[in-house]
Amino acid sequence: MSYEDNIRKVKPYVPGEQPSGSGIIKLNTNENPYPPSPAVGRVLREFDQDILKKYPDPEAVKLTEVLAEEYGVSKEQVFVGVGSDDVLAQSFLTFFNSKRPVLFPDITYSFYPVWCDLFGIAYDTVPLNEAFELEAADYDRENGGIVIANPNAPTGREASLSEIESIVKNSPDSVCIIDEAYIDFGGESALSLIERYENLLVVRTFSKSRSLAGSRIGFAIGSRKLIAYLSDVKFSFNSYTMDSVTQAIGVAALTDKGYFSDTVRRIISTRQNAIASFCELGFSVIPSSANFLFVTHPTYPADELFAMLRGRGVYVRYFNSPRIDNYLRVTIGTDEEMKKLFEILREYMG
Amino acid sequence: MSYEDNIRKVKPYVPGEQPSGSGIIKLNTNENPYPPSPAVGRVLREFDQDILKKYPDPEAVKLTEVLAEEYGVSKEQVFVGVGSDDVLAQSFLTFFNSKRPVLFPDITYSFYPVWCDLFGIAYDTVPLNEAFELEAADYDRENGGIVIANPNAPTGREASLSEIESIVKNSPDSVCIIDEAYIDFGGESALSLIERYENLLVVRTFSKSRSLAGSRIGFAIGSRKLIAYLSDVKFSFNSYTMDSVTQAIGVAALTDKGYFSDTVRRIISTRQNAIASFCELGFSVIPSSANFLFVTHPTYPADELFAMLRGRGVYVRYFNSPRIDNYLRVTIGTDEEMKKLFEILREYMG
Repeated sequence: MSYEDNIRKVKPYVPGEQPSGSGIIKLNTNENPYPPSPAVGRVLREFDQDILKKYPDPEAVKLTEVLAEEYGVSKEQVFVGVGSDDVLAQSFLTFFNSKRPVLFPDITYSFYPVWCDLFGIAYDTVPLNEAFELEAADYDRENGGIVIANPNAPTGREASLSEIESIVKNSPDSVCIIDEAYIDFGGESALSLIERYENLLVVRTFSKSRSLAGSRIGFAIGSRKLIAYLSDVKFSFNSYTMDSVTQAIGVAALTDKGYFSDTVRRIISTRQNAIASFCELGFSVIPSSANFLFVTHPTYPADELFAMLRGRGVYVRYFNSPRIDNYLRVTIGTDEEMKKLFEILREYMG
Repeated sequence: MSYEDNIRKVKPYVPGEQPSGSGIIKLNTNENPYPPSPAVGRVLREFDQDILKKYPDPEAVKLTEVLAEEYGVSKEQVFVGVGSDDVLAQSFLTFFNSKRPVLFPDITYSFYPVWCDLFGIAYDTVPLNEAFELEAADYDRENGGIVIANPNAPTGREASLSEIESIVKNSPDSVCIIDEAYIDFGGESALSLIERYENLLVVRTFSKSRSLAGSRIGFAIGSRKLIAYLSDVKFSFNSYTMDSVTQAIGVAALTDKGYFSDTVRRIISTRQNAIASFCELGFSVIPSSANFLFVTHPTYPADELFAMLRGRGVYVRYFNSPRIDNYLRVTIGTDEEMKKLFEILREYMG
């Protein structure tokens, strides 16, 4: 026997590349091409460093309160974490604790099976239809929990609110997590269902629409009961997860509503132009409510285009997985970045 | 059945109070009374907020490299996390994965049993002797892992390096975690044993000696194998745990070695004076290698003194637990804060 026999061995999630260097166009990890609100810069410049000698507020009360106000819920319905991945990891650990399988689509955020494996949670994947659409009825079966990314990743495709509601309603004995990382780019949120379904948890992030991927701020909104259980697990893992600077940054970003809506509007507008440009080049584009597009071409293989673009300093995401191995996921950048992308594609595709 | 039947229900760790308000003297959570290095303030003022739109470096390479250099190990032997609680939580999840019980002292950091309960890890506590000393031979039995805080909390008492080595050596089939949160205040580190014992993990924090409790920076140093397993679990939980600002703060704090050693020296000097003052008042003081003292008085009950001090705005820590329910844990503050503490005690104790 050896100490290694007792070690938990897992195959970790592989995040998208984080290349650095000038001239690189990074359209591979769904970051926002615009900087965060100037209010964030003010927080950094004016932050009293002496505060850092003390532990941060373990309950992130101020940030929780502004989130509660923004989304029209009570602060006991809000949970904050170190990015939505942290919120999701703790939610899987808290809520998916039965022997029955957790359900999620076969094509979705590839971290879900990783969390299941880490915590020993059984799961079944539910195939999306040919158009990568979710069929609510497929989830009407015995399960130990459900997690749906909406809009979905990497497809960008949105399920309607009535489909989401039907899933939540038909599994009252399970917690249903709706992962709304991309909802601000035009989707319809399940937050309107929170008061009606005690088993519904909506998870959000500041990483995309609020340009704060580098700060690690995620949150969940749900019934008081779900949030209390989730907080108990969080306080059994690490009392102080979000540092003092980040808590202040979160409050500042959330409060600058004008900047937020301007940024989101610009990205949606760039997305509409990008759809047109992809179509002109003969690509098929999955309808997107997110800050990225999922595209495929009838004659140019996706892996070939991926490698060609990477060679020219443009990073997009390619998943070598069943059903989607001829697709590229392209984050919406600035208008200039997209112009450069399409110049390269036009030149290559002749 | 209800969705609540499938939820993981735990009794969370209760952190020390975080009172706010002017005039309060906070000696209850072992924070550093001095602010972090001025280099930390410069990082905040000069940080380019645009960087925050991108994900942070998931491997915190720069911080890892300066830590490796500081402690004379390779960067593959360093793991960083969101405070040492995060590092410890992930280490419990990774390394304590057998049916045999994990061992730790009966009197120690009260988060250890909480992590065991959260992850379903069996454990046994091993009684310290009457003087709150650890006896290495007590750990020479079948176990699924060992965790020792050294110096111990809440006692402050240090186990010798030879005792630590004997524990690690006698359990080659288990991972032994030495939690050195307080080692910089005069203790002898087990880092010197790292190259000899592949099953040894040393955990440290920036929260105490580097005055950065508010930033959440912890790290572990161990064999390449242990760090690789730990990283796999971390990357299965959350790819991006430490935000970009905090990574830069950590590098700045670690690099300002003069400020660090000055601060530590001041706290040790204040501690020595505090020991003398407690003794003058008739307290017994457990020998401390930490930034706090564990004290008891033959005639004044600890809970009474705790309440009296709290009423006068001085927060110390009282644990209503077997064997230590007549002790107070008092963090070493500034000389002025300690002067105020002893004035109040002298006045009360006549």
